[in-house]
Amino acid sequence: MNELKDLLRAVADGAVSVDEAALRLKAAPFADLGFAKVDLHRKVRTGSAEVIYGAGKTAAQINGILDAMLENGQKTVLITRLSAETARAVSAVHPIDYRPEARVGILGPIPKPTGLGKIVVATGGTSDIPVAEEAALTAEVEGSAVVRLYDVGVAGLHRLMGHLDVLMNASVVIAIAGMEGALASVIGGLVDCPVIAVPTSVGYGASLNGLSALLSMLNSCASGVSVVNIDNGFGAGFLANRINHMEAKP
Amino acid sequence: MNELKDLLRAVADGAVSVDEAALRLKAAPFADLGFAKVDLHRKVRTGSAEVIYGAGKTAAQINGILDAMLENGQKTVLITRLSAETARAVSAVHPIDYRPEARVGILGPIPKPTGLGKIVVATGGTSDIPVAEEAALTAEVEGSAVVRLYDVGVAGLHRLMGHLDVLMNASVVIAIAGMEGALASVIGGLVDCPVIAVPTSVGYGASLNGLSALLSMLNSCASGVSVVNIDNGFGAGFLANRINHMEAKP
Amino acid sequence: MNELKDLLRAVADGAVSVDEAALRLKAAPFADLGFAKVDLHRKVRTGSAEVIYGAGKTAAQINGILDAMLENGQKTVLITRLSAETARAVSAVHPIDYRPEARVGILGPIPKPTGLGKIVVATGGTSDIPVAEEAALTAEVEGSAVVRLYDVGVAGLHRLMGHLDVLMNASVVIAIAGMEGALASVIGGLVDCPVIAVPTSVGYGASLNGLSALLSMLNSCASGVSVVNIDNGFGAGFLANRINHMEAKP
Amino acid sequence: MNELKDLLRAVADGAVSVDEAALRLKAAPFADLGFAKVDLHRKVRTGSAEVIYGAGKTAAQINGILDAMLENGQKTVLITRLSAETARAVSAVHPIDYRPEARVGILGPIPKPTGLGKIVVATGGTSDIPVAEEAALTAEVEGSAVVRLYDVGVAGLHRLMGHLDVLMNASVVIAIAGMEGALASVIGGLVDCPVIAVPTSVGYGASLNGLSALLSMLNSCASGVSVVNIDNGFGAGFLANRINHMEAKP
Amino acid sequence: MNELKDLLRAVADGAVSVDEAALRLKAAPFADLGFAKVDLHRKVRTGSAEVIYGAGKTAAQINGILDAMLENGQKTVLITRLSAETARAVSAVHPIDYRPEARVGILGPIPKPTGLGKIVVATGGTSDIPVAEEAALTAEVEGSAVVRLYDVGVAGLHRLMGHLDVLMNASVVIAIAGMEGALASVIGGLVDCPVIAVPTSVGYGASLNGLSALLSMLNSCASGVSVVNIDNGFGAGFLANRINHMEAKP
Amino acid sequence: MNELKDLLRAVADGAVSVDEAALRLKAAPFADLGFAKVDLHRKVRTGSAEVIYGAGKTAAQINGILDAMLENGQKTVLITRLSAETARAVSAVHPIDYRPEARVGILGPIPKPTGLGKIVVATGGTSDIPVAEEAALTAEVEGSAVVRLYDVGVAGLHRLMGHLDVLMNASVVIAIAGMEGALASVIGGLVDCPVIAVPTSVGYGASLNGLSALLSMLNSCASGVSVVNIDNGFGAGFLANRINHMEAKP
Amino acid sequence: MNELKDLLRAVADGAVSVDEAALRLKAAPFADLGFAKVDLHRKVRTGSAEVIYGAGKTAAQINGILDAMLENGQKTVLITRLSAETARAVSAVHPIDYRPEARVGILGPIPKPTGLGKIVVATGGTSDIPVAEEAALTAEVEGSAVVRLYDVGVAGLHRLMGHLDVLMNASVVIAIAGMEGALASVIGGLVDCPVIAVPTSVGYGASLNGLSALLSMLNSCASGVSVVNIDNGFGAGFLANRINHMEAKP
Amino acid sequence: MNELKDLLRAVADGAVSVDEAALRLKAAPFADLGFAKVDLHRKVRTGSAEVIYGAGKTAAQINGILDAMLENGQKTVLITRLSAETARAVSAVHPIDYRPEARVGILGPIPKPTGLGKIVVATGGTSDIPVAEEAALTAEVEGSAVVRLYDVGVAGLHRLMGHLDVLMNASVVIAIAGMEGALASVIGGLVDCPVIAVPTSVGYGASLNGLSALLSMLNSCASGVSVVNIDNGFGAGFLANRINHMEAKP
Repeated sequence: MNELKDLLRAVADGAVSVDEAALRLKAAPFADLGFAKVDLHRKVRTGSAEVIYGAGKTAAQINGILDAMLENGQKTVLITRLSAETARAVSAVHPIDYRPEARVGILGPIPKPTGLGKIVVATGGTSDIPVAEEAALTAEVEGSAVVRLYDVGVAGLHRLMGHLDVLMNASVVIAIAGMEGALASVIGGLVDCPVIAVPTSVGYGASLNGLSALLSMLNSCASGVSVVNIDNGFGAGFLANRINHMEAKP
Repeated sequence: MNELKDLLRAVADGAVSVDEAALRLKAAPFADLGFAKVDLHRKVRTGSAEVIYGAGKTAAQINGILDAMLENGQKTVLITRLSAETARAVSAVHPIDYRPEARVGILGPIPKPTGLGKIVVATGGTSDIPVAEEAALTAEVEGSAVVRLYDVGVAGLHRLMGHLDVLMNASVVIAIAGMEGALASVIGGLVDCPVIAVPTSVGYGASLNGLSALLSMLNSCASGVSVVNIDNGFGAGFLANRINHMEAKP
Repeated sequence: MNELKDLLRAVADGAVSVDEAALRLKAAPFADLGFAKVDLHRKVRTGSAEVIYGAGKTAAQINGILDAMLENGQKTVLITRLSAETARAVSAVHPIDYRPEARVGILGPIPKPTGLGKIVVATGGTSDIPVAEEAALTAEVEGSAVVRLYDVGVAGLHRLMGHLDVLMNASVVIAIAGMEGALASVIGGLVDCPVIAVPTSVGYGASLNGLSALLSMLNSCASGVSVVNIDNGFGAGFLANRINHMEAKP
Repeated sequence: MNELKDLLRAVADGAVSVDEAALRLKAAPFADLGFAKVDLHRKVRTGSAEVIYGAGKTAAQINGILDAMLENGQKTVLITRLSAETARAVSAVHPIDYRPEARVGILGPIPKPTGLGKIVVATGGTSDIPVAEEAALTAEVEGSAVVRLYDVGVAGLHRLMGHLDVLMNASVVIAIAGMEGALASVIGGLVDCPVIAVPTSVGYGASLNGLSALLSMLNSCASGVSVVNIDNGFGAGFLANRINHMEAKP
Repeated sequence: MNELKDLLRAVADGAVSVDEAALRLKAAPFADLGFAKVDLHRKVRTGSAEVIYGAGKTAAQINGILDAMLENGQKTVLITRLSAETARAVSAVHPIDYRPEARVGILGPIPKPTGLGKIVVATGGTSDIPVAEEAALTAEVEGSAVVRLYDVGVAGLHRLMGHLDVLMNASVVIAIAGMEGALASVIGGLVDCPVIAVPTSVGYGASLNGLSALLSMLNSCASGVSVVNIDNGFGAGFLANRINHMEAKP
Repeated sequence: MNELKDLLRAVADGAVSVDEAALRLKAAPFADLGFAKVDLHRKVRTGSAEVIYGAGKTAAQINGILDAMLENGQKTVLITRLSAETARAVSAVHPIDYRPEARVGILGPIPKPTGLGKIVVATGGTSDIPVAEEAALTAEVEGSAVVRLYDVGVAGLHRLMGHLDVLMNASVVIAIAGMEGALASVIGGLVDCPVIAVPTSVGYGASLNGLSALLSMLNSCASGVSVVNIDNGFGAGFLANRINHMEAKP
Repeated sequence: MNELKDLLRAVADGAVSVDEAALRLKAAPFADLGFAKVDLHRKVRTGSAEVIYGAGKTAAQINGILDAMLENGQKTVLITRLSAETARAVSAVHPIDYRPEARVGILGPIPKPTGLGKIVVATGGTSDIPVAEEAALTAEVEGSAVVRLYDVGVAGLHRLMGHLDVLMNASVVIAIAGMEGALASVIGGLVDCPVIAVPTSVGYGASLNGLSALLSMLNSCASGVSVVNIDNGFGAGFLANRINHMEAKP
Repeated sequence: MNELKDLLRAVADGAVSVDEAALRLKAAPFADLGFAKVDLHRKVRTGSAEVIYGAGKTAAQINGILDAMLENGQKTVLITRLSAETARAVSAVHPIDYRPEARVGILGPIPKPTGLGKIVVATGGTSDIPVAEEAALTAEVEGSAVVRLYDVGVAGLHRLMGHLDVLMNASVVIAIAGMEGALASVIGGLVDCPVIAVPTSVGYGASLNGLSALLSMLNSCASGVSVVNIDNGFGAGFLANRINHMEAKP
């Protein structure tokens, strides 16, 4: 705002011509981004962790970004889709905590959980665990408490029913499943909190690399269920944490 | 036709044993290429009802086929995919019992149920009932007892659980559902009898006219589940009845 | 039903504590398999409105369900996917408020809004408004304040930018768009509240009846975005209201 | 620009305070919804015609928009996807020239063509003509000369070859075809100007409502070809005219 | 667990009848939510073999599960989707019989076949044999007699016809084919027992990794045919055995 | 046109040999770009019938084309995809023979069949007959003898086997089927002449409007089978007649 | 086998006429179900080469089949989809001529071409040549003369036009192209012989591994075009040779 | 070739005017069917660079083509889809400048940019840069000035807005994005020059290897946008340069 007023004052003063000011203002809403650091800035302000999407980035690039973040006061950084090989190279510079199953690296301390309650991360099978760990670690690094409920697929309903109390006390449930993806509907019918469904590419043949589970989840006849991309554990964990930190807005 | 008659005369004379004749008759449709009536013949012999696929047939055509079947000694005939309008025209000639919801017409008495046990026809919602009725009536006309369990979708699991005893006593379960099709997996995990899954075209958007439910059911992580075409109530009822009449083969 | 009444009497008597009774009621639908009215019960208890999915139901069926709900003390009922014709027939018995654009009928008063803040319902174009109204009315009937922001598609970014303050003050944003569905990503990048994306079947050719928008939204590179089925305004409004009423869980 | 400069002059003159100006400017491109006519303004300035997408709009709505445009000094307006019925109702108020084949209405005179050269609109068959006319009329109303070359599909190559000179003199070619969509590749190989390919939904079976032609055109092995949505004659005509009016930018 | 033991003691004492206990045990997994071993229990009780899905499991994990099963009294265990490498490592601990073509490992003796009759496993080509062997071994390990009928695809109909007697004596037929998947329809038209169709991913180009065969089988115009997932030999063998062991249910 | 006439005069004069003129005429459509009547010319010369694709053409347009053809000496004209309504209007001017099932109109006599042998047109079911009649009439009008073999689907193999002699004597077989499309493979394995497969849009659900049959036929494991578009009876009949008239080329 | 010998002896004796014996032999595979060698027999009789599909077969298996064929009097054998590695191992036993580009091995002499004329094998690009060589070698080994016309894609139409005489003298044309597959339509419009279109998996992105070319070819607006599976050079070559050897059938 | 030389000699002699010769040369490839070098010729004449599609070509082949081009007077040659390995081998003969990110090799100098203005190449993310570099280098080698604007995806709109002046001064914009592809619509709504959209295969799950971005871009609600194949940087760069060199055609 100050920058804008300075310009107008300069016009008022005659220091800047009307034409010149007109030109600069035309571009203003976008060019006056002096406010370009909004992302870093906002994250620091809200206290949540910053995230680096590691796929396709070299260790040098990641280390460069980490340096910049640390300089900006960032305490905890999550690096997703990080290969073991790149993780080793990053570790030579920054002491990240690498979780191979989730392919996630964490720099700095996992914060003490805050928020409205606990996020339950449930999976249909054991093969869905890598996606689930990406979701769980994301939510933890962003500041939520997480309860893991793995291998509770609907084909053995007693496994799910045995943890009904955990589900019913959840603030948010992340339901992760491949193959037929029915877990989201069944959980959606049991709980009254938001359910984030994550289809996984687990399966073969007509699972179509996760497309079947995705379609199934989108068609869920249970209310309160929404869906993210196939294998997108990060997206689910990030959104769950955001919902878990809902506050009144005046 | 002469060859067939010769064979039967030889059986009558004792010149050919019954076993031998049975063996030759089984192979007949292929060895004796003039032998076109095998289908009628077999149905009459096994006592099950004959079926007419009504879609695209005129009332006159259907009545003609009914006449031929009655002459061949057929007692009960099922007509599927029969519009109300055609049903009215057929009724002017043959006193069929028309069920508008299932779009099925029945000529003759529904036989007293036989078979190993009861077939349970379960649906996820009320919109699946037309397909379910086609399945149920097919199984009944073919000679099975049927228990209907409608609107027990997984989004309200208590509805399904409230009928656990019915499901567990079933000889065969037909699980019919549109949208996400999770019903088949949940039931498949609860029972230890064969489950025939029927996806329906109920739903909108990403249900893709039943394709989502179909894919979901094919990916069922429960053992003992197989799938038929979208909305194919007849196919499921026919197969369920066949399984319900399994006998030892020497 | 007796079991439920016994439990409530025990609560009244002080023989069972409220906490204990709450815990048993939560599990009730599964422990007491005869207990079929749980859904009605829960809605009455939580105070939110009941919903009837009107598609494929006759006016007589809807009126019957409305009678039952009123008897159970339900004050407000939302009927979705209700044709104008059926609405007229329902109105002869119950004085519903019918909104033709959203194809929604409302019986009883829309409650005074509660919740953490306002839900913003944004659409890319004017053709998306029917889906948006279904979402908005659902959220309102369920108890949230709603701000409508229609026709702010990304091809004219100034329209969206002109309401940046509205968006940034939202508790939840519902982003509704057909064609290329870019609205969800752009909004997702602007706000830091949960964004529920609703693809619509608006468009032609390669829009594939909403599939393109659906895929686009699932691939959103903005964090905090999740997706519901094509044209599923109800699902989005219901979930947004649920998120808008998040509370601390001990 | 004048409005902006007026404001700045007012600041320079002291007639408007710096704070007041800052507020108005901040909102200007977006927040000043009075400032909704930005689009109109640009069109009037550049001299090109304004366009109304008629699908889903009532005659009353269209007439209202036309009134507003005329008031703003717009001379020619194109209305696309306009049904004959709505066109009749619009005509009662504004004397539009309705072209039923293209489903296009034109208010005001078609401008004298300008631009670098001629736009050739070529179709594979006669069934593609409605899309072609939408493209041709759009380009004409926007200010380009158009040459129509219809029914020159590749299955009868002599038809195309007989107009080689026309094609080779084109400034831009719009190649419109359904079924296998080969026209775009063949023309793309013959000319050295930009080719805009428009797949149409003409065809049956494996044409998949235009998807086959779309895919075919995207895979064109000829350089200089780009593609718009199925049946999007307007988009092609608009872009062709834009290319036909390319000017040096300093 | 105490509840279960109490029940069994009551049965031993005569305090609870066997029928009553059976009924309560069936419902147990849901009434007694701590009861997690139901699956093991049921398998032991029914005498059929236990199955481990080997894909994605380490040799150590598999050996751990095997240990647990043996302790529970399991005599025969089937391990599906087991790589040769993992099989070698498993063999170092448990003496499994590894069948490389089917990628199946078997621990313990294959039981003497029981059931109503023989299961015929038929394939269209030699490339379908791995899937067929998975199906056949599953059915054998579960307790059925199996007849293999390989490379009898419909393009050489005499090969199929040469085994008509085998087909017609089958209790259940598993029809396995890739490419056009016509085998299921042809066999379905020849036999009057249930036919389980298994599409395989054999083929190239428009076979779409088995999708073409899958669609073809779902559209089978023969009655009595149902379908499982692409390459799902285990599912077909398991279901066939279940059908082959149908018994009267009171 | 002058160039063409000059050439023909030169042939008449003996100045240009017949061989030479033939060579130049073949190339004519491209060398002499004004030469637009090549199609008519060729048809007249080769004696085969001319074809009009009736879909989307008015009766007036069709009658205009018919007039032009008759003037050019055309004796027989086939009009495909002709609605009953348009046929009536055409009949008022030209005495066409309209076949409603095939939606085909024929002007002039069906020629006496020539060619190498008979074309067999086989269908899987009775619903495929409209496509079959389009194929059969096309082949007949173009000059081939046709044998119809309807309703010989693979689910009742004896029906096909009963006409093995007819199939084996065919010059070309057109195999027409919807649903699973297995007919093409089975016939392809029985005969040693070319087989043209025509998928039809008959079926429901997973038949995907003919796509399943199309994919199935493309994957046929029988040699000598090729495929045309869904429901393209004309294309199959035209190609079959062309193959049936193969001659030695020096 | 006895039946066959008896028949042949009867022919030798004059007891059965040649015509009669021929008729019975044609039906033999079905009447005499023990008669499994019909395929070999027919090939030997018609003089054409036998084909082995090499994919998935070991060198040992191929050599075994070759041995059997040589014993049966086969002179030339074609092995398709043969890897260089397997070819080397086969060569150690049988002196095959291996063509690495086509991945084809040939045992024995390529026969002197017979048939009605020449088969032209045309490709759109150089990347299509492997498929083209499979087609060309198949046709040559089966007994046809082949003309290769490679890299004549429609994006450079002069390349195709430069060989118009070759195309117009063809007995059959095989049009092979990936990407947009327009070659088939353009050639189909130029020639009046049968055209067999082969889509290839050449391309990227929206080529969808050949699906785009496949769909394009199926939609060809040129008459006389039919299509085989993606990359199915063998199928095209086999069918082209069959058409090139058409003879009158009485 | 003689015809061409004769024509040029006639031009030299003044016997044929330049205009006349130009007209005849344009038509030459078709009139003079032996004239195969037209492509080379045209490129040389227009002064733009020649392009070699490197995929699937050996270094020897590429060097051969380079030799031929240099002999024909070509100064600059672009080689696309060139692997690092092949580039090394080509470099041993011709001193190409290899850009590994874009997988592009350049022989000869990049020409001094000409044309109407600058081409802006914008990408949504850093993973899209390889495709962007292919586009940018193509446009530069063909003779345009290029401005790179990378990583300006819509999820962080300020990044794009910060470069509004660059975008608004562009002659053509190439918008490159994977995932949801919204960049094209947003840019299309901001600029009034032609926008060429390039979907990339960047993403995972529901990105379907670029198909989602492709569909999204085709559905763009912004006017002036057209689309090329997934990852087709070359095609976009080539077309952009062509548009950037538009000239008046008389």
